[in-house]
Amino acid sequence: MLNYKLVLAYDGTAYHGFQFQKNALTVQEVLEKSLEKLYRKKIKVEPASRTDSGVHARGQVVNFFAPGIISGEQIPLALNSILPRDIIIMKAEIASSEFNARRDARAKIYSYTIDYGFFPDVFRRNYAWHIYEPLDLDAMQLGASFLIGKHDFKAFQASGGSVESTERTLFSLGLEKNADIIVLSFQGDGFLYKMARNITGTLVEVGLHKREPQEVRKILESKDRRKAGKTAPAKGLCLEKVLY
Amino acid sequence: MLNYKLVLAYDGTAYHGFQFQKNALTVQEVLEKSLEKLYRKKIKVEPASRTDSGVHARGQVVNFFAPGIISGEQIPLALNSILPRDIIIMKAEIASSEFNARRDARAKIYSYTIDYGFFPDVFRRNYAWHIYEPLDLDAMQLGASFLIGKHDFKAFQASGGSVESTERTLFSLGLEKNADIIVLSFQGDGFLYKMARNITGTLVEVGLHKREPQEVRKILESKDRRKAGKTAPAKGLCLEKVLY
Repeated sequence: MLNYKLVLAYDGTAYHGFQFQKNALTVQEVLEKSLEKLYRKKIKVEPASRTDSGVHARGQVVNFFAPGIISGEQIPLALNSILPRDIIIMKAEIASSEFNARRDARAKIYSYTIDYGFFPDVFRRNYAWHIYEPLDLDAMQLGASFLIGKHDFKAFQASGGSVESTERTLFSLGLEKNADIIVLSFQGDGFLYKMARNITGTLVEVGLHKREPQEVRKILESKDRRKAGKTAPAKGLCLEKVLY
Repeated sequence: MLNYKLVLAYDGTAYHGFQFQKNALTVQEVLEKSLEKLYRKKIKVEPASRTDSGVHARGQVVNFFAPGIISGEQIPLALNSILPRDIIIMKAEIASSEFNARRDARAKIYSYTIDYGFFPDVFRRNYAWHIYEPLDLDAMQLGASFLIGKHDFKAFQASGGSVESTERTLFSLGLEKNADIIVLSFQGDGFLYKMARNITGTLVEVGLHKREPQEVRKILESKDRRKAGKTAPAKGLCLEKVLY
């Protein structure tokens, strides 16, 4: 048995997240069924990130163990011909037998897209959060600056998260505006449950002048989820890349 | 009764084109039903372009006559709250009573998007033609140059077109590559049935070295549809703007 590493992209609109659920369609179920068709046996995948319902990916990574009957190069072609059009394997390679997509991830990059046009861009309706009220981007960037570094991000963890430590390092949090599109880029060593979306929701409240930028620091220090802003909609979030 | 001019965007994926059909869902049907809800009476719209099944629009224009009970500014807000999320009114204004969206159009701009990545971009699967074989862009641009100007474009008109004259002026046909995306931009005073898609299909054959660039001139001069290349898929085409 060989250990394969896959890089995949998906449009999360039609899926109840990555992780298998009994009564809802997930990316994992569709991917594992396709692998079963290909290998004629049940294969379990381990993802780098359990993206939530409606969240997208350009660079999700999974690993799985399978017999070495198909070369790494052939796997994307073979799987893409089985998979639905909203899931695409971009790359496959043979990894060392110890490689684990989740445990070995050094860092992850997420993007959060805001559609800042007066009316929503019809082609981004499933990929961006539409906000037409004026946003103070300087205030948002200032608010973001308090989050960079190693912190206890408990205040930005949604209930339902179950991790031992809520300390994470956010290497960078950039904010770029290009025409009517604003993209927040998060790079960190790990993300708590809905952390990127809770940070985005809070920064948007700063951008709308509902909160002072300095409040972001206080929220972080409070470690109290009730202090932070609303969770931003899932559709704007995309797992861009996993670094090993 | 006032004459209103609307600018609208739509994702054509779910529609059998713009124009009303008895047994298939069209943009016109959905738009007219929404107008009927708003005005409590049947209203017929006249479009600048009858986009085909699966073709998109960022700047389709229609006009319609309605009582002056809703201001131009309010119409997009009111209609967008009724319309499905894949049709969005971008702008509305009161036009002169003689204005006709189709007849008065001076020029139209269409874009055709090619996804040139090795694997298809999952987020563009409904908005671009995926081509992974190498394309010679210089050859395509040379082929395109023979089409610019006033010509009889009969060779690029699909059967089913029923116009008196097949002479049109193509003001420009640009080709731009940006990362893995190639966009062909057509600006002309009018387009025959499937003309932009037939030109795109022919230029792609030039790019694949299945035809010489100079053949494009011969096809044009032949006025024979059988000489031109295959029709490019509808999903890559988008009506960007109508100029008056």
